[in-house]
Amino acid sequence: MSALAGDESAFALHPRLAADTIAIAALDLSELRLMDDARFPWLILVPRRAGATGLLDLNDGEQATLLHEIRRCANALQRLHAPTRINIAMIGNLVPQLHAHVIARFDGDAAWPKPVWGFGQTRPYRTDERESTLAAIRNSLGG
Amino acid sequence: MSALAGDESAFALHPRLAADTIAIAALDLSELRLMDDARFPWLILVPRRAGATGLLDLNDGEQATLLHEIRRCANALQRLHAPTRINIAMIGNLVPQLHAHVIARFDGDAAWPKPVWGFGQTRPYRTDERESTLAAIRNSLGG
Repeated sequence: MSALAGDESAFALHPRLAADTIAIAALDLSELRLMDDARFPWLILVPRRAGATGLLDLNDGEQATLLHEIRRCANALQRLHAPTRINIAMIGNLVPQLHAHVIARFDGDAAWPKPVWGFGQTRPYRTDERESTLAAIRNSLGG
Repeated sequence: MSALAGDESAFALHPRLAADTIAIAALDLSELRLMDDARFPWLILVPRRAGATGLLDLNDGEQATLLHEIRRCANALQRLHAPTRINIAMIGNLVPQLHAHVIARFDGDAAWPKPVWGFGQTRPYRTDERESTLAAIRNSLGG
């Protein structure tokens, strides 16, 4: 546990992730964040492991926990939105800090069927939308 | 095991995946295939589970096996290419059959830093390239 606590204490969210996303919850391994783009229900998981840039930088237990947290996000989006697809990805070409995307996609959404990354212009949440979206996701995660 | 064998017997590779990819190996859970696009070292894992369209359609053991197979692919690409990044994704907006992408990306490759999906024109392997690429991947998987 001391090594884990040590890794956590050195962790800091990448400035671009901090700027582009909104805190939802601290899960066992990861910071769960909402991408500030109202076009898509788009969750981001950032494992609190300083220096991790890829899946292979996590140990076996951490990888299993990340998989569990990805599933938890996918289930929450499934319950909330019953989407056409859930896209799951770890890319990180622009932001090297390890993070996973879990995105609800709909036949007919702004980018469909293309991937969302780099597609068009972000549309930040309005304050009221943001609060209701955060509340709905927190509620669905608990369900 | 009979349920598992039953699922496997009903499995058939989606025609688009069959057309776009080349067989590399049958892993414990998944068919491992090479995307026939010489611009990127691009592996595809297709779990042999009839009807599976998303991660949540696999049971816990199958999900853990898929994670293991994704890591095995990522390690193989890491050993072969020492890429800038390894992109891992399950998208399936165009091909609903569950499949995972594991792609070696390089600062300066054809699409960098954009994602590869839908980017530009595919460049199929020449016969000699294809055979040497398959051999190198099979060798790296065993290593």
